[in-house]
Amino acid sequence: MKFDMTYRVSYGDTDQMGVVYYANYLELFERGRTEMLRSAGLTYRDFEAAGYLLPVHEAHCRYHKSARYDDLLTIRSSVREMRGVRFTIASEILRDGELLAEGYVTLACVDAVHRKLVKLPEMLTSRCRQFMTPEES
Amino acid sequence: MKFDMTYRVSYGDTDQMGVVYYANYLELFERGRTEMLRSAGLTYRDFEAAGYLLPVHEAHCRYHKSARYDDLLTIRSSVREMRGVRFTIASEILRDGELLAEGYVTLACVDAVHRKLVKLPEMLTSRCRQFMTPEES
Amino acid sequence: MKFDMTYRVSYGDTDQMGVVYYANYLELFERGRTEMLRSAGLTYRDFEAAGYLLPVHEAHCRYHKSARYDDLLTIRSSVREMRGVRFTIASEILRDGELLAEGYVTLACVDAVHRKLVKLPEMLTSRCRQFMTPEES
Amino acid sequence: MKFDMTYRVSYGDTDQMGVVYYANYLELFERGRTEMLRSAGLTYRDFEAAGYLLPVHEAHCRYHKSARYDDLLTIRSSVREMRGVRFTIASEILRDGELLAEGYVTLACVDAVHRKLVKLPEMLTSRCRQFMTPEES
Repeated sequence: MKFDMTYRVSYGDTDQMGVVYYANYLELFERGRTEMLRSAGLTYRDFEAAGYLLPVHEAHCRYHKSARYDDLLTIRSSVREMRGVRFTIASEILRDGELLAEGYVTLACVDAVHRKLVKLPEMLTSRCRQFMTPEES
Repeated sequence: MKFDMTYRVSYGDTDQMGVVYYANYLELFERGRTEMLRSAGLTYRDFEAAGYLLPVHEAHCRYHKSARYDDLLTIRSSVREMRGVRFTIASEILRDGELLAEGYVTLACVDAVHRKLVKLPEMLTSRCRQFMTPEES
Repeated sequence: MKFDMTYRVSYGDTDQMGVVYYANYLELFERGRTEMLRSAGLTYRDFEAAGYLLPVHEAHCRYHKSARYDDLLTIRSSVREMRGVRFTIASEILRDGELLAEGYVTLACVDAVHRKLVKLPEMLTSRCRQFMTPEES
Repeated sequence: MKFDMTYRVSYGDTDQMGVVYYANYLELFERGRTEMLRSAGLTYRDFEAAGYLLPVHEAHCRYHKSARYDDLLTIRSSVREMRGVRFTIASEILRDGELLAEGYVTLACVDAVHRKLVKLPEMLTSRCRQFMTPEES
């Protein structure tokens, strides 16, 4: 199952090419994965309060078409992999069903105090399993 | 004495009107006051390490002309007032000597642990005095 | 009548003080006034397509309490004044009914081609009248 | 040859984890490639004025260590590949010689009027050749 949310492009998201600035897609990815977790009953705020942090290990984005000011975008999120200390979220940005951009972000779980890598806790994995999708070729 | 630094406008700073997005001027103001403090021998990082925070209480900006992509701007900072728990930094944004925008930010000093207002510490006021300028009418 | 919309604070909105970075409130103000116009049947995109731009002339914000990561904020917008070439939008940021920040933005209407000031067009003023509120003291 | 520039981390660049927000590295990459071009006598502004745009086709970043507030970073840029309509810039972010993050951005050249792909113009390739570095394994 993939998780969808909508997002309205603001003026501040655009650049002088008249499109969403390329770095801002990564912020859209973050909004998507946060809401995906929330829909499964886990806020990232609670996750941090439980003593974990999820720094980003790797990010990738491929840009197909430009998102524009005032577009109502769909941010589609799913879990590509959970293994050991890491998990990978795949994200797609769509407008009226058309794919504008896609990518993934790999996060590593660390404990908030020592900032050491720790195994993904059950409170995360149990809730994310429903969003697992095999990587598409 | 006013403190000048230069800043190059990036693509990410602009919006689709082809100019620097209006909220980003406040980030330029922040860059200016940070470097002003550093030039006086105080990094804001050290200031935080000493147990203080400077949350913003009020911000104001008046926009005269637009800054554009790739402009080499001058960020000019000075201290308008220091009194009790607050101080106010005036900022001007210039391009080739022409004033593009001007404003001020009032910061309140709080201790980092209890987040209570505290009197501006000597380590700050002694270093800022050289940048005091009377408010212009 | 004032116009309310909700906004979820993202991780990217915060700074290392653990609160929404002060410049980002101006982006929230922009989201609010855009949706206020949309609710009245005018998208800012259409307004630009009709040959107008609304560069910001002045912005002001007073910060009372900090908005935090994952907060569900209310952005409340109203029209304080419309006169000649300018209009002023008042904005409030609330969390659970508590006022966190408030301010205003004055926009000037220019034609997109010559970038000269022009009188606020009827397509804008007729739709904004319902959001007029007297300035509070 | 690789091109180095320095960048001071601002408060606005950080997030509540106390580090530079992950999307902002892509803005650092952009600052680096812009200054690399400028050092070779070509401003991206002039490049646009000549009728070209360079939308981003793909972006990738791997994060090793966190950049923090007030860090003085080195942004190191080089050209990994120029072929047909595309070219790829490699970027590294360092602090005191230590690699914090690295990635690449692939840009596609389009003409500004029709937004169609066009071969990389000589004005770009001739200036970028000096920054060509073979991809490291």
